[in-house]
Amino acid sequence: MSLVLDPTAQDLLFREARTPQTFTEEPVTDEQVQAIHDLVKYGPTAFNQCPLRITLVRSAEARERLVKHMAPANQAKTAAAPLVAILSTDNEFHEELPRLLPVFPQAKDVVFASREVRERSARLNGVLQAAYFIIGVRAAGLAAGPMDGFDFPGVQAEFLDDDHTPLLVVNIGRPGPGAWGERAPRFGFEEVFTTV
Amino acid sequence: MSLVLDPTAQDLLFREARTPQTFTEEPVTDEQVQAIHDLVKYGPTAFNQCPLRITLVRSAEARERLVKHMAPANQAKTAAAPLVAILSTDNEFHEELPRLLPVFPQAKDVVFASREVRERSARLNGVLQAAYFIIGVRAAGLAAGPMDGFDFPGVQAEFLDDDHTPLLVVNIGRPGPGAWGERAPRFGFEEVFTTV
Repeated sequence: MSLVLDPTAQDLLFREARTPQTFTEEPVTDEQVQAIHDLVKYGPTAFNQCPLRITLVRSAEARERLVKHMAPANQAKTAAAPLVAILSTDNEFHEELPRLLPVFPQAKDVVFASREVRERSARLNGVLQAAYFIIGVRAAGLAAGPMDGFDFPGVQAEFLDDDHTPLLVVNIGRPGPGAWGERAPRFGFEEVFTTV
Repeated sequence: MSLVLDPTAQDLLFREARTPQTFTEEPVTDEQVQAIHDLVKYGPTAFNQCPLRITLVRSAEARERLVKHMAPANQAKTAAAPLVAILSTDNEFHEELPRLLPVFPQAKDVVFASREVRERSARLNGVLQAAYFIIGVRAAGLAAGPMDGFDFPGVQAEFLDDDHTPLLVVNIGRPGPGAWGERAPRFGFEEVFTTV
């Protein structure tokens, strides 16, 4: 066995973790979300840009506004999840670089003066951080249901502004009855990896 | 403490893991890479599309061909890392969906008939899988150095084909002397999260 990570943690984060279709009613607390952030904030991003921003949809009226932008197949579970998070990028992340990257504070202007460059980089690094967040939700003993089936301009107009681009909506909670079916197959090593 | 993941695993994957600038000469074996794959292959993707493909650059001549496409600041470490991986998406991933998604095999044609839709979805889900892979490298007790500073069309032409889009190049190995400086600051909870 070539992994250092202990098998219990492997199960918690990958082998037994699944995307739930149903949830219990047990709430997800701000303390849990803070603990997730305090862990996954260390995940690597280019120039330590940390572009991910997260909107926690807690009120009933905000949940209702969000559900109407979800694809039909995602509406019921988004309405039922104990907590729903809208993950987006801050395309003006460069403003914070002098603080986040003290070894190269001029990156703000030298590397990221162009909005087009920032949007491309924020998208790549924001999605990396979205995956760290999903792993973090699992590290808290919760299940994450990431979804990209929603009206992106609609969610942006409803909850964000012109400087923030939505990436994913994530349902969070404890899996309920019939939360998932059989695990779908995965590729073998030789189907993913090529050696040159 | 709201996390279930044990503190040793937290340190291994996030708190003490860093992006290395130098490496020891200890090789990274195929057995290690297979163990990483056998863990992170379970990370969630939309419709279980699993679009990530990985090219392991092992031969000296392939390493030389890759290094010349890297940004100047990335060339020395890419030349020195025990193993380098090119992460890309397969934009024709839908061909495998009937096997990967037995509950909805018609997704291949109903959802992903358009190449434009596939490229957008493969990029999002491929980058999620890239982050799972980085976590997996750390789970193997190794350090990962993800980089997007390279000539994307150059790497595509040199190592891939028209159906595969590069996402990241990742150095892999054990950190060497002076692998990193002081940890850069991260955002506090209130700077990332908004509640509605």
